[in-house]
Amino acid sequence: MKVNTSILSCVRQAVRNFVPNHLTGYDVPVKLDQNENTAGVPKSVLDHLNDRLQEVSLHRYPTPRQPEIRSALSKLNVWPADGILVGNGTDELLLMLAFSVLEPGRRALYPSPSFYFYDQVVRVAGAEGIEVPLRNDLQYDVDALVRGVEALEPHVVFLCSPNNPTGSTLNEGEIRKVIESTTGLVVLDEAYWEFHGWNGRELLDEYPNLVLLRTFSKAFAMAGLRVGYLLARSELVEQFAKVQQPYPLNRLSSEAALIAIEQHDVFEKAARDTAVERERLYKRLERLEAVTVYPSRANFLAFRTQLGAQKTFEGLRERGVLVRDLGAHTLMRDTLRVGIGTPEENETFLRALNDLLEVAQYRE
Amino acid sequence: MKVNTSILSCVRQAVRNFVPNHLTGYDVPVKLDQNENTAGVPKSVLDHLNDRLQEVSLHRYPTPRQPEIRSALSKLNVWPADGILVGNGTDELLLMLAFSVLEPGRRALYPSPSFYFYDQVVRVAGAEGIEVPLRNDLQYDVDALVRGVEALEPHVVFLCSPNNPTGSTLNEGEIRKVIESTTGLVVLDEAYWEFHGWNGRELLDEYPNLVLLRTFSKAFAMAGLRVGYLLARSELVEQFAKVQQPYPLNRLSSEAALIAIEQHDVFEKAARDTAVERERLYKRLERLEAVTVYPSRANFLAFRTQLGAQKTFEGLRERGVLVRDLGAHTLMRDTLRVGIGTPEENETFLRALNDLLEVAQYRE
Repeated sequence: MKVNTSILSCVRQAVRNFVPNHLTGYDVPVKLDQNENTAGVPKSVLDHLNDRLQEVSLHRYPTPRQPEIRSALSKLNVWPADGILVGNGTDELLLMLAFSVLEPGRRALYPSPSFYFYDQVVRVAGAEGIEVPLRNDLQYDVDALVRGVEALEPHVVFLCSPNNPTGSTLNEGEIRKVIESTTGLVVLDEAYWEFHGWNGRELLDEYPNLVLLRTFSKAFAMAGLRVGYLLARSELVEQFAKVQQPYPLNRLSSEAALIAIEQHDVFEKAARDTAVERERLYKRLERLEAVTVYPSRANFLAFRTQLGAQKTFEGLRERGVLVRDLGAHTLMRDTLRVGIGTPEENETFLRALNDLLEVAQYRE
Repeated sequence: MKVNTSILSCVRQAVRNFVPNHLTGYDVPVKLDQNENTAGVPKSVLDHLNDRLQEVSLHRYPTPRQPEIRSALSKLNVWPADGILVGNGTDELLLMLAFSVLEPGRRALYPSPSFYFYDQVVRVAGAEGIEVPLRNDLQYDVDALVRGVEALEPHVVFLCSPNNPTGSTLNEGEIRKVIESTTGLVVLDEAYWEFHGWNGRELLDEYPNLVLLRTFSKAFAMAGLRVGYLLARSELVEQFAKVQQPYPLNRLSSEAALIAIEQHDVFEKAARDTAVERERLYKRLERLEAVTVYPSRANFLAFRTQLGAQKTFEGLRERGVLVRDLGAHTLMRDTLRVGIGTPEENETFLRALNDLLEVAQYRE
């Protein structure tokens, strides 16, 4: 055997250089750290699903190019099936987008903080990642985005609206401004659109460089099934599909997604209820002197405490409530993110937070 | 908006240049074109699975890094869990491997014909693909592989044993020879190992540059669930994981795979039965004058007919049997591939083939 001092030398430099963040799993009764729909899939949908799952031929590959689900998504979105690509969650689609468009010498631009995976896919693809900070109030700085795009000419801009982890949004005019400033792609991640009530579907008709990302993990309560999809011009979809596995969606998840699409009204109504509950929780947090809460249009709230992010995280965890500690980001010092759970879960969270602040003498 | 003559200019050159092969779906009673386990998942396993599926929390993300299934696979393979990566089918793992290791200016080497996806992942990654032809008898040409490796120093060698679509194998000594000729990675795709009875697990202890790929789509009868995994040194796995989505396996497929692992004996026994049935079918095909059949250690047989590949494919399809037409490959003129189905399906195939050759006057 040839001397092989390090097998790692086979791995691309861009990959070796990247240092990932690993999420730690905690076993805690009230889990509000991943923006899941904690109410779960409604029983009517589950019953329907269980019937259908019995009939799935597990031993058969999915149909090539998965026409059933693409056709259902086409009707739901009034957009050609050729312009739709399904993925094993939007995570897989983000990787695919990055490897379709990015390589060393190219650039990608995205807000910061935003969904952590944009940065990861850009960097492992070997491209330069340009982070444009949000404003101090955690709102988008659209002028900074446009200036960044015009100066650095990225091949792709990732936007997330409502933005994870802040809940802040871009309005239609602001999205147009960014799209019109670039000849690159604009990937608008709409994972949380159902809690906001607006999406960019109509902009697709106008802008050939726009790509929309959607997920079944949030409003559709199917994070465990890994279903996401992308809407774009068919010419682009044809290219992206070359960088994708031939069967991204397994047969069980595909059946579940089909039923969810049939009953999308049920999920969209539940998302509106979550938005109402979010506003209620916002008002409750606003009343706490030791807490600053930020407006959000998603199914979570970012909030700052005088106790600091780490102590708040630990104190809540000890009280059985898991939230996300965002404090590592420069803009997010002392800040955490809590998902909107069921009213009962939200009350448990509020009680735990009150108790923690009281013990720490930051009383209400 | 800036003039955007073609949005496709955003897409990497390597991706634009690649011309994919699209599989056409046919609705035919006897489907033997994808090397599936057509007997399906045994009823005892299905019942167990249906019980467990009721308990899965669909709305929760899978556990980060999916420790349950990695731990079960660790026991099954007597290999550390840190050295295991699960994927949404081996297809996803192949893409991940390519984007971990390959980029423009690097090379990958693989046999030809072999699994079509090696070529795709290599080319969309922008690397040079070096195809080393099998011999005319469709057996591996190990000397040519070694010469290719030594002359061109690829960063990765893909080997498939038993090889798809020929069924030919490399023996242990031959695999060692290839591994010892390179400082790059050797990815040994063992999708069909259960029908052969030998796998490279023990070689992993010796060779730090060896990566094994396994699938639940063949012997384990779960092609519809998209479950594959990879065995390698943990240092490598840590790197590969950076180029992977955080939750490659959905909760339902994960449950199914866990049950399959518990009951692996059942599936391995069924694979041995399939191997017996393969030998029976081989002998039956050998008797046909207009047919040349090739020895295979997988769950399929490659065979050549005097009628030609396309006419045979169409004639069988008209008779309700779907096989794979391999005729487009220079080495595979007049050649097709038929999966080993149930004894009844195999009889239907033989009857259809006999009838077709008789009508075409290539009588038995």
